[in-house]
Amino acid sequence: MPAVGMVGGGQLARMTAAAAVALGVTFRVLAESESESAALVTRDAVVGSHLSLSDISSFAADCDVITFDHEHVPGDVLAALEADGVLVRPGSAALRYTQDKLAMREGLTALGVSCPRVAPVATVADVISFTGGAWPVVLKAVSGGYDGKGVWVCRSAAEAEEVVSHGIALLAEEFVPFRRELAALVARSPSGQGAAYPVVQTVQVDGICREVIAPAPGLDEELAMEAEALALRIAAELGVVGLLAVELFETRDRGLLVNELAMRPHNSGHWTIEGARTSQFEQHLRAVLDLPLGACTPAGSFVVMANLLGGTDPDVYDRYIHVMAADPAVKVHFYGKGVRVGRKIGHVTIVAGPDDDVDAVRERARRAASYLRWGTEDGD
Amino acid sequence: MPAVGMVGGGQLARMTAAAAVALGVTFRVLAESESESAALVTRDAVVGSHLSLSDISSFAADCDVITFDHEHVPGDVLAALEADGVLVRPGSAALRYTQDKLAMREGLTALGVSCPRVAPVATVADVISFTGGAWPVVLKAVSGGYDGKGVWVCRSAAEAEEVVSHGIALLAEEFVPFRRELAALVARSPSGQGAAYPVVQTVQVDGICREVIAPAPGLDEELAMEAEALALRIAAELGVVGLLAVELFETRDRGLLVNELAMRPHNSGHWTIEGARTSQFEQHLRAVLDLPLGACTPAGSFVVMANLLGGTDPDVYDRYIHVMAADPAVKVHFYGKGVRVGRKIGHVTIVAGPDDDVDAVRERARRAASYLRWGTEDGD
Repeated sequence: MPAVGMVGGGQLARMTAAAAVALGVTFRVLAESESESAALVTRDAVVGSHLSLSDISSFAADCDVITFDHEHVPGDVLAALEADGVLVRPGSAALRYTQDKLAMREGLTALGVSCPRVAPVATVADVISFTGGAWPVVLKAVSGGYDGKGVWVCRSAAEAEEVVSHGIALLAEEFVPFRRELAALVARSPSGQGAAYPVVQTVQVDGICREVIAPAPGLDEELAMEAEALALRIAAELGVVGLLAVELFETRDRGLLVNELAMRPHNSGHWTIEGARTSQFEQHLRAVLDLPLGACTPAGSFVVMANLLGGTDPDVYDRYIHVMAADPAVKVHFYGKGVRVGRKIGHVTIVAGPDDDVDAVRERARRAASYLRWGTEDGD
Repeated sequence: MPAVGMVGGGQLARMTAAAAVALGVTFRVLAESESESAALVTRDAVVGSHLSLSDISSFAADCDVITFDHEHVPGDVLAALEADGVLVRPGSAALRYTQDKLAMREGLTALGVSCPRVAPVATVADVISFTGGAWPVVLKAVSGGYDGKGVWVCRSAAEAEEVVSHGIALLAEEFVPFRRELAALVARSPSGQGAAYPVVQTVQVDGICREVIAPAPGLDEELAMEAEALALRIAAELGVVGLLAVELFETRDRGLLVNELAMRPHNSGHWTIEGARTSQFEQHLRAVLDLPLGACTPAGSFVVMANLLGGTDPDVYDRYIHVMAADPAVKVHFYGKGVRVGRKIGHVTIVAGPDDDVDAVRERARRAASYLRWGTEDGD
């Protein structure tokens, strides 16, 4: 059996580990510590730094292919691994677009893909000159952001000044008054096969994904096909191997703008574990192993996933009994992470039957996540 | 998070490990070696003997509850663990019925459950006196049998003589000319909650399960309900905690006879991984942890599972590419076990859509399993 090594030991690696059990392939993880989410459930967990070429090199020596739980491995490290003959999937040329938001926007624009307008900025004067003095404007860290970190919606020069004062490389982005956020998740294998999951709606609060509804309710069929085709085209043009999640704005005039790219399993695809014939985690393994991709067919009429964020009481397990008794069909996923307020520590999924109502299922998922977080169904 | 320890490191423990990843509970396994199926994928795998009280005791010291991948832990070891205050689920009183087929039949008969007629036998004369000289007759080892091992269908005194000559404790059982074999899988929690999966049809060849169709096609609805109620009643009366699989004969006059019991995840329930809202492995964990049981609702109109037996070429992975390309919806499960001819080394599952035909899906599953085994779709 081939061995897949995943650099990064977070929940994405943890859920990939579970998919590897079924496929029978060997799964190894390079984690920051033995108590990291994926390391807790992986026999072949190695502790090391994702910033260190030597740590990744020795890890890769026992793997047939390496892939990633996040996009934080430096580009020069990736290039050095490839130069050493390590099979890195996705490769450094593709990953560059997820590590440098300016490169990503330039690359997409070169492909003719519509994105919000952006420009690098270093001062508040740059920001004002970018928007012509209009507010709000979005400032983003060029690299290193995730889960709302590294993104600021500024409503005044004073707010922009505060962000600029952090001294990190920034870009300014036009504030798009979108109708809603969508995500298109696709996979691409080295031999060029592509597979697309149904386009989903994502609901973010303070930049953190809170809820995913698959497929996106009421989405125009042509727009859904356009989003899938767009994601497949981006994957092909950028040479992605593995999963590509394309975060999109559905604009008020029913157009699509690409907001972000991720080249790994993605929060917008957690619903696929129970909700699709092939989970995104199995799909990513298949792709990086150059196996034929699996069916993306949904397993129910629709699926709702709600993220579980940390509350104030760390004993989440104590609250399982209530949630499971209240709703025997809710699937609870806990990542084995320490509980901190607002940290993503798990998720719940409900696969709907043919007679279910979207709003009712969303409410069930919200209640379960709220109870697991706060011990009450009336929290957020 | 509580820690569940499973004694036995086979594929049932391996698949339970994957379910534990999602639930977030700690999972530990007591395996015979570090290369056993479940040990390959479990961080907390301990090597030890399931026959040794001291091995199990020290394993159990790090677990909140212990449970089993097989029924081969001796009854006195189980009783000693319980006397020591170890939480053993299911308990020794229930497990006795799976370890001693005579006790099982006597227990079921005392509950008024219909079973094939049996008697202990020590000589061919005993066998002939049991049947009045009619053949065939079934001889079974009183304990220790599995997967067709320990079961002999004897068609003559000479064949019976050969079995008797093994010198093991035997029982003779009337040969039932059944219509087909069914299995009823239920779960029961310590607080008495029960949950029943749809009754399935199992297809055995030479005593080894080859195929499961869920639900059993064309099964009379009343008979299905009778089988579920029977299994729930047996679980309650025998004090089972965890899963109970009841193997049944559907007789030619549409009656039910109980053939075997297993108190653990069971081959007839592998289809639930993709095919039911709650997999049997998650359900077993919930039950032994005294969590509320999950929904047993099927995820498709029907599901077909085909076992993958070992062929002559050990490199099963080499054949993934063909099977996955031919049928993107087939789910491949490989247990990481060494390949030997006829050994259960994995299974494939297909969840059918509303327009699928049972025979066509069975054929797809058979083809996939055949190809993985032999490198041709036309094998068995």
